[in-house]
Amino acid sequence: MRSQDNSTVTITPLGGLGEIGKNMTVIEWDNNAIIIDAGFKFPDADLPGIDKVIPDITYIESIKHKVRAILLTHGHADHIGGLRYVLEKVKVPIYGTELTLGLADEVLPGSVRPVDFRKVTFDKSNQIAGIKVDFVRVNHSIPEGAAIALYLPAGIVLHTGDFKIDLNPIDGNQMDLQRFGELGLKGVLCLMADSTNADEPGYTGSESEVGKTFENIYRAAEGRIFLATFSTNIHRLQQIIDVTAKFGRKLIIDGKSIVDTVKVAQGLGYFKMPEKLDITPEQAAKMPDNKVVIVTTGTQGEPMSGLTKIANATHPKIRIKKSDTVIISADPIPGNESLVSRIVSSLLKLGATVHYRSVDAVHVSGHASSEEMKIVLGLIKPKYFIPVHGEYRQLWFHAKLAREQKIPQENIFICENGDQIQLSQKKAQVVKKVPAGAVYIDGASVGDIGTAVLKERSRLARDGFMTIGFAISKLSGEVLSGPEITSQGFIYIKESSDTIDLVKKAVLEIVKDWKSSKTSIIDLKRIIKDKVSDMLLETTRRRPLVLPMVLQI
Amino acid sequence: MRSQDNSTVTITPLGGLGEIGKNMTVIEWDNNAIIIDAGFKFPDADLPGIDKVIPDITYIESIKHKVRAILLTHGHADHIGGLRYVLEKVKVPIYGTELTLGLADEVLPGSVRPVDFRKVTFDKSNQIAGIKVDFVRVNHSIPEGAAIALYLPAGIVLHTGDFKIDLNPIDGNQMDLQRFGELGLKGVLCLMADSTNADEPGYTGSESEVGKTFENIYRAAEGRIFLATFSTNIHRLQQIIDVTAKFGRKLIIDGKSIVDTVKVAQGLGYFKMPEKLDITPEQAAKMPDNKVVIVTTGTQGEPMSGLTKIANATHPKIRIKKSDTVIISADPIPGNESLVSRIVSSLLKLGATVHYRSVDAVHVSGHASSEEMKIVLGLIKPKYFIPVHGEYRQLWFHAKLAREQKIPQENIFICENGDQIQLSQKKAQVVKKVPAGAVYIDGASVGDIGTAVLKERSRLARDGFMTIGFAISKLSGEVLSGPEITSQGFIYIKESSDTIDLVKKAVLEIVKDWKSSKTSIIDLKRIIKDKVSDMLLETTRRRPLVLPMVLQI
Repeated sequence: MRSQDNSTVTITPLGGLGEIGKNMTVIEWDNNAIIIDAGFKFPDADLPGIDKVIPDITYIESIKHKVRAILLTHGHADHIGGLRYVLEKVKVPIYGTELTLGLADEVLPGSVRPVDFRKVTFDKSNQIAGIKVDFVRVNHSIPEGAAIALYLPAGIVLHTGDFKIDLNPIDGNQMDLQRFGELGLKGVLCLMADSTNADEPGYTGSESEVGKTFENIYRAAEGRIFLATFSTNIHRLQQIIDVTAKFGRKLIIDGKSIVDTVKVAQGLGYFKMPEKLDITPEQAAKMPDNKVVIVTTGTQGEPMSGLTKIANATHPKIRIKKSDTVIISADPIPGNESLVSRIVSSLLKLGATVHYRSVDAVHVSGHASSEEMKIVLGLIKPKYFIPVHGEYRQLWFHAKLAREQKIPQENIFICENGDQIQLSQKKAQVVKKVPAGAVYIDGASVGDIGTAVLKERSRLARDGFMTIGFAISKLSGEVLSGPEITSQGFIYIKESSDTIDLVKKAVLEIVKDWKSSKTSIIDLKRIIKDKVSDMLLETTRRRPLVLPMVLQI
Repeated sequence: MRSQDNSTVTITPLGGLGEIGKNMTVIEWDNNAIIIDAGFKFPDADLPGIDKVIPDITYIESIKHKVRAILLTHGHADHIGGLRYVLEKVKVPIYGTELTLGLADEVLPGSVRPVDFRKVTFDKSNQIAGIKVDFVRVNHSIPEGAAIALYLPAGIVLHTGDFKIDLNPIDGNQMDLQRFGELGLKGVLCLMADSTNADEPGYTGSESEVGKTFENIYRAAEGRIFLATFSTNIHRLQQIIDVTAKFGRKLIIDGKSIVDTVKVAQGLGYFKMPEKLDITPEQAAKMPDNKVVIVTTGTQGEPMSGLTKIANATHPKIRIKKSDTVIISADPIPGNESLVSRIVSSLLKLGATVHYRSVDAVHVSGHASSEEMKIVLGLIKPKYFIPVHGEYRQLWFHAKLAREQKIPQENIFICENGDQIQLSQKKAQVVKKVPAGAVYIDGASVGDIGTAVLKERSRLARDGFMTIGFAISKLSGEVLSGPEITSQGFIYIKESSDTIDLVKKAVLEIVKDWKSSKTSIIDLKRIIKDKVSDMLLETTRRRPLVLPMVLQI
């Protein structure tokens, strides 16, 4: 594409860089802006009590007047889970393939409706905000994943979305390598590409390999088969259905999130379920075990998931038998390894046969490995390259691959969320930084859980606290009531009367001294806090938070 | 060995089963008992504030009169780190190889001294508690690791300790397979064997492979080289020294734990350090970067470690330069993956070249994989088999290997900590269960951190708390002062005056109603707790712990 040399485009990743999750990118040109993806992520272990984390969208609010559309690459929560928070601020049409929009529709609350969904297909270009936009098919662990090509005045910007190259895909739809080649020949100004597995050598296995493993396991299984997988992995579910039908078994689906996905995918025809294949638990109870397959969630050891309840024997309906076979068809996400390992141990302890990644080939990744990344870099040969979707480590390795593919170092941008990269055919540079921190969702509140509160939580988790309350006379400074002491997370108060008595005595002494010094209540509180903290450190080697409460009468 | 058919031996694992860490086993016969290993482990993420975890030793205290000795297999903390707590209760001689005792000596506090250390060698049998005891050489990620063979009246009991079969060991000392064969031919009543990598196929790589990788990295490195490793991995350290000397570089050792290990190992001759190879940071500052190697700790991303400080640019002396090369020569222990990944990202961000496991062969495990386990099972062909040192999952896979090696299912015991297995030439069975939970060390206190306090900590971390204090008249029930409110981990109190005012108003209302009802203060507290909790849930969708404190005057 011949471009006007003076035109520029500004790319602002607001999430997904330096992290896995909450993907979101803003593309701006002239007086227009579009948003690619709006995801959330689950909190790390160092964010106690937080439900989910979304990108900071204050920048989007500030350019609200020029935002024309949100484009979705695919229907995973780290790409669509933050939609509702964006729609609360910016009412614009949402573009995506049929299944992606179906899944987005499923997660949006009534409060942001009606929503202007606009379905796209892979075989037709779209006009959005005055430019041509193509959705190009890629493979991923969900059907209908798309790369998005924007034909901007400054040149073509191509975002791969999450991708792998599956040469033996379940639905027969390979990633559209031809179109990638065509885009490359036209000349791509800037490529943004998924970096998740940039430090994995070789090629990612085909989804269809997993089906072969399932067949072997089904062949050997004597009793029921439990299959845990991600609820959105529709190709995986399709393979489960196919192999279940092939071996003459019936299927129970246990878990709302899978039922919901199946409903959407089946309604849109992305799912071929033979009639009467799925049955109720009541029907299953009347069948021989070797005719039953139970599909459930919980591949990450999530405490409330079906698999965890089954493993801990707390499931309301299902108990593991010695003849059962369990397949955990997913990898642990970093940080979840211990949880998953516990689930495997618990299931083995109950007598089940367990198949999981480190022993069997029951999962393949949905993301390209380094050789596939090189294929895309070779097809596109972009002028500028921005690795996206990954921790810094993964972006770094993807950048390394790009250098090896002859993209000059100065044309590769390893960015952070909030970096604004301005590009033209002549030059590219990071021009500024916009707010792009993490916004925490805890209960009903969006974002008002600050770092201070999170620090308090960590401190409380480590050391607990002790509250010391008493009433004193405003006039005389005499203690009129108390001290009373409550403590949590420090010592077991019913068995620690010695420590409590010591603290009470010390506090009364402190008040006596303070009375004669005639300083303020604030001083009194500070002295109590310091002295009691020191005392507890000395006697217990622990540092609970000490909170004096003085009531004046 | 011909054995008396009536004799029995009782084996009680007190730690290391169903977990990785705090290994400890009690072996009893007639009126004798010996303890094999006494380790600790670091707490899981769900034990906030806990420093370390040791086995429950109340059972050992109950058989105190017959405990004759503690035998140590090797000098790792998960085998010797709990020694001090055992010695506080039971003063007995400690047997081990020279290096193992040297490392044990290093960690014992003055309070348990003097300690009766008794050095053993691999080439001489020992008489302990009236029986013959042999220490048999195995390979592991520390030199001088031993399997322990006890010639008991009931038969031979063999404990492998932590082992792998290294055919190309750094110190030239292969695991003593001949002696294993000899023991097998004599007839082993019971084998206890390390299960850590039971679900890993094939063979574990030789330690010497890592040295070859180091050579390649040294050859390519243009600036300083940082090498992070476990402080006790003396063979690894030896290889670092050798390759550093070979490439004409000098070495700084950064980190007390490595300095301590080097001191012990060098003092005992387990370490060959060329003269003037190690230098001070001041000397290094005057040398060209390509002559400097810095050995440090922190392979697990521990917050206070050298490597973490270097990666976060908070180290007092060391700053990363773009020409630096960093080698993280260890695998993340399950649960630490995210921490390690962050360290790698931070180092790459500072411009360093980073080598770590998932990309390069810079580490091998110290534990046997499944084929090596089969070799040991084949050499020993024990009558009974107890897989040890592993989570249930790993014990289960080790048991599976044993079944495949023709040990009958009924002669294999997958046990839990505290199970007592009584064995004789005629039969074996679990006869009873003794206390064997985890004992938490937090500050100065051993064990008095109960489950209740830990639950409190988790609750506080998730939701925070709110204390509501006020003084009332004993006579009239009038509020005389307050309510005053403190809160932590819930909302940022300075910015939440609306919520605070709501709570205060509600509490005053509640007291007014309560006054007329004439019920107890306990009732009043309960009502406040319930009503304020409901109110906060409704307005904030969060559930802080609400703690009323009522002072009567």
